[in-house]
Amino acid sequence: MPDKASLATLAEFEEFCAGAADFLQVYDFQAERIEYGEATVRLPYDRKHVRPGETMSGPSMMALGDYALWVAVVGAYGVMAKMAVTTGLNVNFLRAAGLNDLICEARVLKPGKRLAVGEGTVYAEGVEGPVAHVTATYSIPPAKSGT
Amino acid sequence: MPDKASLATLAEFEEFCAGAADFLQVYDFQAERIEYGEATVRLPYDRKHVRPGETMSGPSMMALGDYALWVAVVGAYGVMAKMAVTTGLNVNFLRAAGLNDLICEARVLKPGKRLAVGEGTVYAEGVEGPVAHVTATYSIPPAKSGT
Amino acid sequence: MPDKASLATLAEFEEFCAGAADFLQVYDFQAERIEYGEATVRLPYDRKHVRPGETMSGPSMMALGDYALWVAVVGAYGVMAKMAVTTGLNVNFLRAAGLNDLICEARVLKPGKRLAVGEGTVYAEGVEGPVAHVTATYSIPPAKSGT
Amino acid sequence: MPDKASLATLAEFEEFCAGAADFLQVYDFQAERIEYGEATVRLPYDRKHVRPGETMSGPSMMALGDYALWVAVVGAYGVMAKMAVTTGLNVNFLRAAGLNDLICEARVLKPGKRLAVGEGTVYAEGVEGPVAHVTATYSIPPAKSGT
Repeated sequence: MPDKASLATLAEFEEFCAGAADFLQVYDFQAERIEYGEATVRLPYDRKHVRPGETMSGPSMMALGDYALWVAVVGAYGVMAKMAVTTGLNVNFLRAAGLNDLICEARVLKPGKRLAVGEGTVYAEGVEGPVAHVTATYSIPPAKSGT
Repeated sequence: MPDKASLATLAEFEEFCAGAADFLQVYDFQAERIEYGEATVRLPYDRKHVRPGETMSGPSMMALGDYALWVAVVGAYGVMAKMAVTTGLNVNFLRAAGLNDLICEARVLKPGKRLAVGEGTVYAEGVEGPVAHVTATYSIPPAKSGT
Repeated sequence: MPDKASLATLAEFEEFCAGAADFLQVYDFQAERIEYGEATVRLPYDRKHVRPGETMSGPSMMALGDYALWVAVVGAYGVMAKMAVTTGLNVNFLRAAGLNDLICEARVLKPGKRLAVGEGTVYAEGVEGPVAHVTATYSIPPAKSGT
Repeated sequence: MPDKASLATLAEFEEFCAGAADFLQVYDFQAERIEYGEATVRLPYDRKHVRPGETMSGPSMMALGDYALWVAVVGAYGVMAKMAVTTGLNVNFLRAAGLNDLICEARVLKPGKRLAVGEGTVYAEGVEGPVAHVTATYSIPPAKSGT
């Protein structure tokens, strides 16, 4: 757990998300935890995420990793960072997830002035060991006034 | 255009995909071209792909890149490669795509025995310059007999 | 070849490099071409780059890719960009290079205000097909005046 | 610390490396720890690793990350894996390292049959927080007997 308090609460975060992004209707992400630079987000199992081989698809894991890291970024910078954009992402797929909920544990490695870099480990409920590992970089919008 | 003939036709490819993967109901990918190690795939604009800022989302670009490269892999190895799995993917987001169809031009850089590596450039219709660049690696299933 | 003229000449570039960086004594890079957002750089074969299997090492390919892309960045932004720093790099190794010179063809995919993204393809002299493919992102220092 | 015993000792590892690779004369890596799927490796500060800005260069951090992960792979698979080759690597640079020794803590995330994926965190002695984060994939040579 991080030393500092989160700069955004789950309630603030969810208020921002409500209705803000159409693509969240595809991905029913559930933010379960938000701390300073950390977050836990769940993607519930649904047939629409299943790829051949009866397993949760890579794109769904990538979407979850990107989203969970973005939540962690908001926890580190506050709601001003809600307009942060992903500049790049790298994922390694480690093992099959099966037909299970996915959970991503995300943390910011470096909350920089212009860029934030983070990593996320994706687990599938009931599967031992991580199913994917994500790193990503976010461009932080300049603070409006002064700062 | 590559020297060799594609090892799979668009018709063969679409026959395989029909009903094969639930996640294709989220992404209405249209494979427009398949050659030996090359492919062009379109993701039609739809509200469900839109993120805050009124632009096509990063996850949709990643999903398109991954899929288009997989089509190119099938073009290089034939339908036996339909069970190829992505082992890793890297994406750089370059500019906003707006509310437009996305088109990915994908090509295999190295069709190896165990791994195939490829790159894809994602364009948004009506936007000058690429909106994203993807590289990814696919694990090629061992041939059944002999080899 | 790009539409615009390079914002730095090879002579300007070499003048900057002379004595500027100790690590260039390890890597005898030869910048052969600099254009607007493009560059060609050679790493001459030398025993000090050889890894087990009698082939040029991965770290030498990564160093070459990073350097060549940086030269291309300087071509796009001018010598003010000589203090650009790499924020991230991704490489895929494609085939063995053997005991040969390495040549990287680098180009900037997006010369942004804060970030530049580029890709480089590494060839080994006498080897058919690329031996490595690199993408990297550079943080562009803010212009002194104005901002 | 991992549950299983390392499949290679530091002594075995060093015996293999002695004289085996010319590029190790550029990088004076010191393997400080080898466990099952884990390793700690130091790169001592030297002027030859310094880039403009008086800081250890990115290529030196990438080389260290690649090497340390390879040591961790040897710890997980034994000396048969000494011929494992890197298939891809991703690095994010997080902060300046200054003129200090670099230390990489590496661990294998997934020791697969054909591929091993790992991550490494690079620290600079005396600098708070990681200076770079590396993920990489290694192709594991097939076991001789049985296949």
